[in-house]
Amino acid sequence: MSKPSKDIKKVVLAYSGGLDTSIILKWLQTEYGCEVVTFTADLGQGEELEPARQKALLLGIKPENIFIDDLREEFVRDFVFPMFRANAQYEGLYLLGTSIARPLIAKRQIEIARQVGADAVCHGATGKGNDQVRFELGYYALEPDIKVIAPWREWDLTSRTALIAFAEKNQIPIAKDKRGEAPFSVDANLLHASSEGKVLEDPAQETPDYVYSRTIDPEKAPDTPTYITVDFEKGDATAIDGKKMSPATLLTELNRLGRENGIGRLDLVENRFVGMKSRGMYETPGGTILYFAHRGIESLTLDRGAAHLKDELMPKYAELIYNGFWFSPEREMLQSLIDKSQEFVTGRVRLKLYKGSAWVVGRESPYSLYDQELVTFEEGAVAYDHRDAAGFIKLNALRLRTLAKRNRRNKR
Amino acid sequence: MSKPSKDIKKVVLAYSGGLDTSIILKWLQTEYGCEVVTFTADLGQGEELEPARQKALLLGIKPENIFIDDLREEFVRDFVFPMFRANAQYEGLYLLGTSIARPLIAKRQIEIARQVGADAVCHGATGKGNDQVRFELGYYALEPDIKVIAPWREWDLTSRTALIAFAEKNQIPIAKDKRGEAPFSVDANLLHASSEGKVLEDPAQETPDYVYSRTIDPEKAPDTPTYITVDFEKGDATAIDGKKMSPATLLTELNRLGRENGIGRLDLVENRFVGMKSRGMYETPGGTILYFAHRGIESLTLDRGAAHLKDELMPKYAELIYNGFWFSPEREMLQSLIDKSQEFVTGRVRLKLYKGSAWVVGRESPYSLYDQELVTFEEGAVAYDHRDAAGFIKLNALRLRTLAKRNRRNKR
Amino acid sequence: MSKPSKDIKKVVLAYSGGLDTSIILKWLQTEYGCEVVTFTADLGQGEELEPARQKALLLGIKPENIFIDDLREEFVRDFVFPMFRANAQYEGLYLLGTSIARPLIAKRQIEIARQVGADAVCHGATGKGNDQVRFELGYYALEPDIKVIAPWREWDLTSRTALIAFAEKNQIPIAKDKRGEAPFSVDANLLHASSEGKVLEDPAQETPDYVYSRTIDPEKAPDTPTYITVDFEKGDATAIDGKKMSPATLLTELNRLGRENGIGRLDLVENRFVGMKSRGMYETPGGTILYFAHRGIESLTLDRGAAHLKDELMPKYAELIYNGFWFSPEREMLQSLIDKSQEFVTGRVRLKLYKGSAWVVGRESPYSLYDQELVTFEEGAVAYDHRDAAGFIKLNALRLRTLAKRNRRNKR
Amino acid sequence: MSKPSKDIKKVVLAYSGGLDTSIILKWLQTEYGCEVVTFTADLGQGEELEPARQKALLLGIKPENIFIDDLREEFVRDFVFPMFRANAQYEGLYLLGTSIARPLIAKRQIEIARQVGADAVCHGATGKGNDQVRFELGYYALEPDIKVIAPWREWDLTSRTALIAFAEKNQIPIAKDKRGEAPFSVDANLLHASSEGKVLEDPAQETPDYVYSRTIDPEKAPDTPTYITVDFEKGDATAIDGKKMSPATLLTELNRLGRENGIGRLDLVENRFVGMKSRGMYETPGGTILYFAHRGIESLTLDRGAAHLKDELMPKYAELIYNGFWFSPEREMLQSLIDKSQEFVTGRVRLKLYKGSAWVVGRESPYSLYDQELVTFEEGAVAYDHRDAAGFIKLNALRLRTLAKRNRRNKR
Repeated sequence: MSKPSKDIKKVVLAYSGGLDTSIILKWLQTEYGCEVVTFTADLGQGEELEPARQKALLLGIKPENIFIDDLREEFVRDFVFPMFRANAQYEGLYLLGTSIARPLIAKRQIEIARQVGADAVCHGATGKGNDQVRFELGYYALEPDIKVIAPWREWDLTSRTALIAFAEKNQIPIAKDKRGEAPFSVDANLLHASSEGKVLEDPAQETPDYVYSRTIDPEKAPDTPTYITVDFEKGDATAIDGKKMSPATLLTELNRLGRENGIGRLDLVENRFVGMKSRGMYETPGGTILYFAHRGIESLTLDRGAAHLKDELMPKYAELIYNGFWFSPEREMLQSLIDKSQEFVTGRVRLKLYKGSAWVVGRESPYSLYDQELVTFEEGAVAYDHRDAAGFIKLNALRLRTLAKRNRRNKR
Repeated sequence: MSKPSKDIKKVVLAYSGGLDTSIILKWLQTEYGCEVVTFTADLGQGEELEPARQKALLLGIKPENIFIDDLREEFVRDFVFPMFRANAQYEGLYLLGTSIARPLIAKRQIEIARQVGADAVCHGATGKGNDQVRFELGYYALEPDIKVIAPWREWDLTSRTALIAFAEKNQIPIAKDKRGEAPFSVDANLLHASSEGKVLEDPAQETPDYVYSRTIDPEKAPDTPTYITVDFEKGDATAIDGKKMSPATLLTELNRLGRENGIGRLDLVENRFVGMKSRGMYETPGGTILYFAHRGIESLTLDRGAAHLKDELMPKYAELIYNGFWFSPEREMLQSLIDKSQEFVTGRVRLKLYKGSAWVVGRESPYSLYDQELVTFEEGAVAYDHRDAAGFIKLNALRLRTLAKRNRRNKR
Repeated sequence: MSKPSKDIKKVVLAYSGGLDTSIILKWLQTEYGCEVVTFTADLGQGEELEPARQKALLLGIKPENIFIDDLREEFVRDFVFPMFRANAQYEGLYLLGTSIARPLIAKRQIEIARQVGADAVCHGATGKGNDQVRFELGYYALEPDIKVIAPWREWDLTSRTALIAFAEKNQIPIAKDKRGEAPFSVDANLLHASSEGKVLEDPAQETPDYVYSRTIDPEKAPDTPTYITVDFEKGDATAIDGKKMSPATLLTELNRLGRENGIGRLDLVENRFVGMKSRGMYETPGGTILYFAHRGIESLTLDRGAAHLKDELMPKYAELIYNGFWFSPEREMLQSLIDKSQEFVTGRVRLKLYKGSAWVVGRESPYSLYDQELVTFEEGAVAYDHRDAAGFIKLNALRLRTLAKRNRRNKR
Repeated sequence: MSKPSKDIKKVVLAYSGGLDTSIILKWLQTEYGCEVVTFTADLGQGEELEPARQKALLLGIKPENIFIDDLREEFVRDFVFPMFRANAQYEGLYLLGTSIARPLIAKRQIEIARQVGADAVCHGATGKGNDQVRFELGYYALEPDIKVIAPWREWDLTSRTALIAFAEKNQIPIAKDKRGEAPFSVDANLLHASSEGKVLEDPAQETPDYVYSRTIDPEKAPDTPTYITVDFEKGDATAIDGKKMSPATLLTELNRLGRENGIGRLDLVENRFVGMKSRGMYETPGGTILYFAHRGIESLTLDRGAAHLKDELMPKYAELIYNGFWFSPEREMLQSLIDKSQEFVTGRVRLKLYKGSAWVVGRESPYSLYDQELVTFEEGAVAYDHRDAAGFIKLNALRLRTLAKRNRRNKR
């Protein structure tokens, strides 16, 4: 392992304002003796940001070294929506809510580092997870000579007790409920909340109800379905029930609809990039609706060749995002391919939301490729002669017949 | 188009006993003047088969030329289960319920043709659909010189009126409700029921409630969830709630559970192999539960490399089945790959069924690859050193850093 | 089969001026009674085009209905070069010389049809080959309602004798050497010449020497190697030995170099899209050099992620072109992906040409990703710490170790 | 980085008998103070093994701790041949000669470790290369708790001077020509020799002639071609010129033929798994002939669907082997798929070898799928009706026509 050089002048820390990153902040000051710049982003995690400023000031950060940004629109427009154009699901089920936020944070940290002349960046991800990889691949891809500090891989504060002791010794305020161990850990942004660890660590045990924060229990959802429409333009959602909205506003509204109908819970055992299996609980209320809606509009407007090619490449695309390769040439190449396909993915999808499910029940588009005349049982459509099918089948069968004869000849 | 030779001595007809295939039966006798052998299979479509025998006798088929087979176990064991090992979904959503039944029917028709010395086979699929392709590719792959008769591509009975007139002229009994046009057409077997045509032809319109036959309306499903367990051995389901069952019995029971909880409805616009889009309504109650259960047990027992390779190849595998290439070398090669992966896909999955949804809520296996020690936040697991992650990230980042330097050098 | 309507007013014929397309020309006039427009293209096949004009006039075509175009630059720039960016090889070996010319001919025929108000197009490809598919998919993709005439699938001139008789009856001049059957058939353009049929039909027999037209026998090639450099800009060749050339000029020069050194012969048994195997002899002198040169410059300038993604998708891309789907959304999507990767594929490759082989012996680029400091055995490069490799290996091994433990536990 | 524990009792060293691994041997004794077991394998590298035994004895290894195995047949039969069934080429060109030998060495080291009760294994690969990964992934996949010692990542003998000093101090005999730095480094086995480093480090410079050891200069090869036949059974070569041979004998003979005709040189810039580009010179004389021969017999006996699926998966399969994942579930799954396809890949290929090239000039098989009747221009083959092609094209074109109409409607 290449030990990070201690010779660091200024570091940009991804700072949430919580206890753990406050400890990191102080540790950076004491361990590295360097100037700390804090960066706090609103990605829709649902927490106020001003307390983070106050806490940073309290911990001695200079006002000009405190960066607080509302990145919600950029997050949805430039990261979430491009990913949803691909119908990306990791391991068949996971909508990548955590994975897709990391590259944006990394990108903004590097921008700030350039702006303030910092020579290092720091994140609070642990040494066993995917997030450290996602952050650091982002850093290096954007600023190849940046120094990276990952406290959880470096320090010896390896127990809750040690952390609390460090906090007390350094006069870091500790909220009462943070003294003990959390029963599970949470990551949240506008796309989803994920929970893992502790009470979730036995994959045989059902997730306790108190873990959920973004969705109500389907059993407590309304007894009558909610119908909505989602409009798309070139593959991106633009309106709900005919009302145009900005990307982040739209996702926020889909989240509200999903939450109320108990939509988007996923209990998953997944394979981490760093090599082990983990069990997580994801809540992606709006994203789940968006996923089905996008598949719905594509089903009407995308050609078979385009659709199947996308489907074949989706697992690889999702894996790249999961593994942290957003800023890689291969992700960008796949994005070019995907975006190319979305030119006519425009129209309206109608969905029924009900107690945990989102069903597409109708779709329409000025660019529809569905042709009722072609598909009807009645003869007469100009483009289709029933008898063409005979030749089509005959030539598709030709190689299979040749094979069958060969195999018969050789008494397979 | 190669017009089928009229010189046919004996033909094996896939015969349901319904009006359409009865008309075909008579038409074969009159048009081809050949001996007709009927084959009626129980694939779990939910209809009694003895009436088909009576009707065949009535239409002049010799008793020894009437074949009626219960293929339900073979269907589930040798077709449905192998396909579910792959988690096959066509166009991301469709569980291939119709597609997977066709090769078995084709195979049995060819077996009967060999047994009775027939030189031709005949099916009742129309000239615009996928089923004609699936039947005929199956026929040709198994018996390359067989003659194939596809009446819907040959005759001039192109309207309901013409069909009814032909039936009346030939003393074919017509059930009262068959005189008019059906409001939609249905295909059913133990895995699913599909409906399409007529009232379903406008993809913007929600499917009317009377179309559903295999599931109750989720809104009318029980207000409390049903919990079940499904056991797997080497990738195949073997027991429900700990009770061992044969493949067909198990799927029947899953169907009951799915039906009662309104699970497995799918309203889809799909791309047919013959080139147009169509809209269908699928009901796959047991299959939907099975799909999630299988993914659940795989999530615990399948290695990442194996799982991702399967996911990448799934779309192609599903496309092959959809397009009718079950009996092709490439499907068999993919099956070898898939089956190879299932050796340890053994264990128990717990699911919650509720108003249209089936959620995996727990899974356990003697072959689990999940290692709580590895994943826990605590340090100390023998196999994992937090600091290894630094080297892992550094080498994964190396090419991205080289790229970034190159691009920076060239002011991209 | 849908028989083409006889009700055609004006047809654009792909006309070579040779005996076969002259017979087609006359047959169109007599059988369809329609106005015939001839289109003759110079794609580098190596024949003069003016005789085609004379022959068309002789056969009664109006001067304004004769189109003769030099498409060589368009062919190389817009078809050959984009394809070579992908390193496309069908079935691992074939550089797609015939396949890539068809879409351009189809495109130009449709343009002329629009210009002259023709309602049909006609080609001279036979009913067993791939070219009919390539032409017609091109026609339909660009002009969906166009009528297509494929004489070889329609007429009864199914023997050489019948063709000659038709020609004589219709006063079509017959070159002396065209009376008998050709010993094999040839297709040629600037990229390659292909030969198939007759003397080549036994795949066990070596191709006779007189079949070759574009390359000299390697054994007769110079006894000393020829060294050249090829320059690339963004994936396309731009200069030979430092001398800038237009695309067609450059390929012509590479052909000369390849011919003289006996480079680019390929004796292949291939799988046709229409279902059977065929055996062909291809000569692609310049293209073979270009293929290796392009791989050479990519090896230096393309990132691993980009390169491997391209390699994985190449077989599908090549298959699409071979099968005639140049004008399909999936080919265009793949092209977007490929082109995206070529931004920095710029530099110079040095090759050694010698008696049938083209070896890359050197490559250099201002955008090189090769870093001698990184790769040298000496320690000290900033970007690489030997010890990082330990962590990299440990985490890559983690899942394999978990598997091994599981399997050991279960005495696999 | 997880520092290897010093608490090691017995280690199995992959020992060549050369200076470097002799230094490692001594370093293990002094640094780890553990018992050293040497393992020397004959993989066809072309060196005598007895001197390794003498040297090991001289360095104090007990006779019962010296293992010397001839693994040539196992190497070719169980590693090289299965890989060639896949036509594996890394990055389009490299036949993976080094990569495929590593898993066998790792496997045998682990077997010996079990036999002698060793708790560690050790290899002499450097910290910048792929081989360390290949060795160690093999070790861990087969024996998950084994300890691994990689001296080049641990010690401080980082210069030639330091190594020589260590050798002298420890009375390790130093061959005269080993005092200075080698002008390049070599790896060799029965499949190939690879050279890299030093004089090869500038990718713009042609490889000097003295680097080659396995092939004569094509310019000095015979002026007349050599014709040979290679027989295959189920995908593996079994005879040359009709003479049956064991796998290793056959590859040895192909090497002789390849060497004499200057076949199999490859000058490559490749992407290492550890993240950088390197430049290597490979000589794979017999393997190159075998590659083309295998493609030749497949072209005749493999169905299109099987062949194309193999081609699409080959890059991934080759990447797995290159990266060291031979003992992974995904490689084994792909192997199942590949092996499944080889059942009828049996027959004879005729090749022409001449001054650097190996051309297939003929192929024949009792299982040939090539059907002259199908492919001939003459009408009349039972299985093919020219007019079927019309329907085939029409249905393949249908979606493209629908697209064209949609796009035209929207004035794309």
